[in-house]
Amino acid sequence: MIDQTRLPLELIYLDITEIPALCEAITSLRIRGAPALGVAAAFGMVLGSQHYPEENSDAFFANLRKTGDILKATRPTAVNLGWAVDKMQAAADAHKMASVSTVKEALLKEARRLYEADRDINRRLGEHGNVLIPDNAQVITHCNTGALATVDYGTAVGVLFTAHGAGKKLKVWVDETRPLLQGARLNMWELLQEGIDASLICDNAAAFVMQREKIDLCIVGADRIANNGDTANKIGTYGLAVSAHHHGIPFYIAAPMSTIDSSLNSGKEIPIEFRSGDEITFGFGRQTAPEGSSVFAPAFDVTPADLIAGIITEEGILRPPFDAAIRASVKS
Amino acid sequence: MIDQTRLPLELIYLDITEIPALCEAITSLRIRGAPALGVAAAFGMVLGSQHYPEENSDAFFANLRKTGDILKATRPTAVNLGWAVDKMQAAADAHKMASVSTVKEALLKEARRLYEADRDINRRLGEHGNVLIPDNAQVITHCNTGALATVDYGTAVGVLFTAHGAGKKLKVWVDETRPLLQGARLNMWELLQEGIDASLICDNAAAFVMQREKIDLCIVGADRIANNGDTANKIGTYGLAVSAHHHGIPFYIAAPMSTIDSSLNSGKEIPIEFRSGDEITFGFGRQTAPEGSSVFAPAFDVTPADLIAGIITEEGILRPPFDAAIRASVKS
Repeated sequence: MIDQTRLPLELIYLDITEIPALCEAITSLRIRGAPALGVAAAFGMVLGSQHYPEENSDAFFANLRKTGDILKATRPTAVNLGWAVDKMQAAADAHKMASVSTVKEALLKEARRLYEADRDINRRLGEHGNVLIPDNAQVITHCNTGALATVDYGTAVGVLFTAHGAGKKLKVWVDETRPLLQGARLNMWELLQEGIDASLICDNAAAFVMQREKIDLCIVGADRIANNGDTANKIGTYGLAVSAHHHGIPFYIAAPMSTIDSSLNSGKEIPIEFRSGDEITFGFGRQTAPEGSSVFAPAFDVTPADLIAGIITEEGILRPPFDAAIRASVKS
Repeated sequence: MIDQTRLPLELIYLDITEIPALCEAITSLRIRGAPALGVAAAFGMVLGSQHYPEENSDAFFANLRKTGDILKATRPTAVNLGWAVDKMQAAADAHKMASVSTVKEALLKEARRLYEADRDINRRLGEHGNVLIPDNAQVITHCNTGALATVDYGTAVGVLFTAHGAGKKLKVWVDETRPLLQGARLNMWELLQEGIDASLICDNAAAFVMQREKIDLCIVGADRIANNGDTANKIGTYGLAVSAHHHGIPFYIAAPMSTIDSSLNSGKEIPIEFRSGDEITFGFGRQTAPEGSSVFAPAFDVTPADLIAGIITEEGILRPPFDAAIRASVKS
């Protein structure tokens, strides 16, 4: 996988062979992006299972469960980690009576399926979202949601890739996304490579851009969506949605159906990850706040459903009221 | 003066004796903060005048005007530069028939008067603003508006100093204020020194804090205020005001009366300074966006009067409709 902490200056590939190294890569955000995390966790289950003693099926399943718990605990907000671990566990459980080597084969097959499915899902999501993008659209986006955040192609930025591929002219305003600058480092890198007109802004300039330019829509990704449509995403998403609402600009979420956590009725139940304050005060290799500063560093926020115009998924665009739309989609 | 670009890690005093060095200090933000800029420009006029040939009064006044124009051009948005230069010019003009040495004395006297007045104005502003701060208040502020931004004491943060001095318990949420981090570097430094409970946040987390905590008010400074109350201040102020409005949180401006530009009827006429994109992409000694990134870097934005609950000045708190309140105050 690409070490995303080194971009945009260095393109370094990591070769990960052990669970502790994978967990470190996840917690330190070398790999990040909800869909990418899901597939990483799936291959983590394969990786872990290769180190278990092959003879004893009970011990194998106990170890597999332990590996799953370790992977789930790396980051609390993105649902995709748990979703992928559960998929893998189910694939293993389906062969509980078979030999351990058969279970291992089933795990590898399921991880590969999730990997391939993510690429396909993103392409379909992009096609659905493309309908919302007019020619000469001006769009604001937040955090990175391109190929790096997924197996390939991306979610919110994937929609922009699809629109660009369809020959539409775009102007994308890229929130830098403090503190870890996924917008500046990763979105700008991906958009430049695709030749899409993109301007980097500080997050706090988005409202000014809305006031000054004709912005057609905002489009962002998601880390977890509750049944009512409340959406957890990178810190700053909520403020952007509030500004969009104030300016009458439609605000869209782009995320695979797997991002919907059907165990949660509202966003209030979504756990929010808090990160070390050092990511804010030592972010750029230099100390930028005085010794002893107290820092409040949420990694995510929750945008209430009533600020969201639609949720773009691989199944189509879900519209409010989201409860009913999600129920219908999950069933179908 | 303190070199504010070196804080919080180093407290370095600059000894400035030439106009080019002063202009460099202003454009590179070694000295910043609208009221501090005004007084710096006033002493700049004194400094400049010391180098003119003393014999010829006409040449002296031509040079003085030139110095004023140079100082005014350093930064376009803050009105205080021009305000102070005009005050100094008027002080000189009042002695046009006297000897050049008398004019020089008058200039030094006027600069000292503006210096002393700023300190006094801030104390009075603080007392007026203090009325708005309840005990156990939670407050969000943006950019630096403490002693560093003025001769002494500060405007928006000065109000917090007054409330703290009056024995009130405060919890201050400090926007880091991208790109140059005046909140993280300067506000945190000043608030820590005063022993006020302050938590640093990324600008994009302010809406999340409003959603989660009981915020009593927002309070920020200003670089220029139009007759209708529209207020230019550090980029990000407008977005913060929009979020405050969404959450029903009153949003206050704290600024001396000299910040009101009575030549402007609305904020649309306020010139916005754009800065080098490098301040965003090379902010802290490390490149954080790919080569060739287009960057949109406004230094200020304009908050419309209808999002502002009041303007705290040394004369009292101006309330909407601001046109009438400002007209009454400017006259009195």
